[in-house]
Amino acid sequence: MRNAEATRERILEAAIAEFSAYGIAGARVDRIAKAAGCNKNLIYIYFQNKETLFTTVLGKHLARVYEDIPFTPDDLPGYAMRVFDFAIAHPDLMRLMAWFGLEQKADSPAERGAALKVKLTALIEAQNTGKVGTTFSPTFLITAIMTLATAWTAASPFGSSFQPETAKQRNKLREDIAEAVRLLAAPKTA
Amino acid sequence: MRNAEATRERILEAAIAEFSAYGIAGARVDRIAKAAGCNKNLIYIYFQNKETLFTTVLGKHLARVYEDIPFTPDDLPGYAMRVFDFAIAHPDLMRLMAWFGLEQKADSPAERGAALKVKLTALIEAQNTGKVGTTFSPTFLITAIMTLATAWTAASPFGSSFQPETAKQRNKLREDIAEAVRLLAAPKTA
Repeated sequence: MRNAEATRERILEAAIAEFSAYGIAGARVDRIAKAAGCNKNLIYIYFQNKETLFTTVLGKHLARVYEDIPFTPDDLPGYAMRVFDFAIAHPDLMRLMAWFGLEQKADSPAERGAALKVKLTALIEAQNTGKVGTTFSPTFLITAIMTLATAWTAASPFGSSFQPETAKQRNKLREDIAEAVRLLAAPKTA
Repeated sequence: MRNAEATRERILEAAIAEFSAYGIAGARVDRIAKAAGCNKNLIYIYFQNKETLFTTVLGKHLARVYEDIPFTPDDLPGYAMRVFDFAIAHPDLMRLMAWFGLEQKADSPAERGAALKVKLTALIEAQNTGKVGTTFSPTFLITAIMTLATAWTAASPFGSSFQPETAKQRNKLREDIAEAVRLLAAPKTA
């Protein structure tokens, strides 16, 4: 039993590397099996097919994101900075997200919809209590924040050429993102 | 000669559909040849290989974007709205951009670097004359504008599930993007 769990973990490890590099259509189950040191059939037994393996891998990593980066509706700039840090530190996951959006071959992990719902509820509450401005709807705000915080990664074709060569450059970009989010989420004055 | 030009055009037409659907690695030159109704060898004669064909297709369509959407540094919200309209109307091109960023298999079209330079120069000028705020650097602003204006397309994994079912929804989103850009580009008030 313990052995089976270890094999399952090795497959998931190998799978994120393979999917990150080649996407869903381009990924090869036999390469994943080889990298995981297991029989190819085991992958089908554990995960059914390539698409459900992808959804499992993405869901597993997103669950870690949601644990590592608590959503703080009363500090959206801080949240954006933590998403930025995570995205820069985990290019593999950003690539998974980009393949997922582009190929639309796999189901969305259940974790994703659930996490979005929690965030939207918290944002509505923060808007109702005046902590977050009401210039934009909660769904617009969430999308704008996630998009800006990950614009300098493989998740976006516009900033993905950015190579944060120095910590100084990275810090500046991080602060600019936080400031942009502050402007978008500020209660309307005037 | 006229014939050769027509064939070249048919190949480029077929290529954008193929690349948009499958990316660079997944695209098949023989499918492009079949769709264009020409011999596969002609594609290699005209375009050398699959990667340079991709760069040619992307460059051609970006050149059209630059012609159709003049950059207006003194009206950045309006520019963002025009980029949004174009992106919604041309999902194929958004997909090309996303594949390009993700696969990093082809050279960047010369058109892209040149257009970016022109925009940055115009933005610096607009900041110097006080028309655009200096909260953010020109490169940050450009990336933020392009990213927000295309966040609800295949170019982004966060808003790409958006289906603008009614013109009303689309107009609201368009106005929200313009307002977000207005906030980011506004001259700083103490």
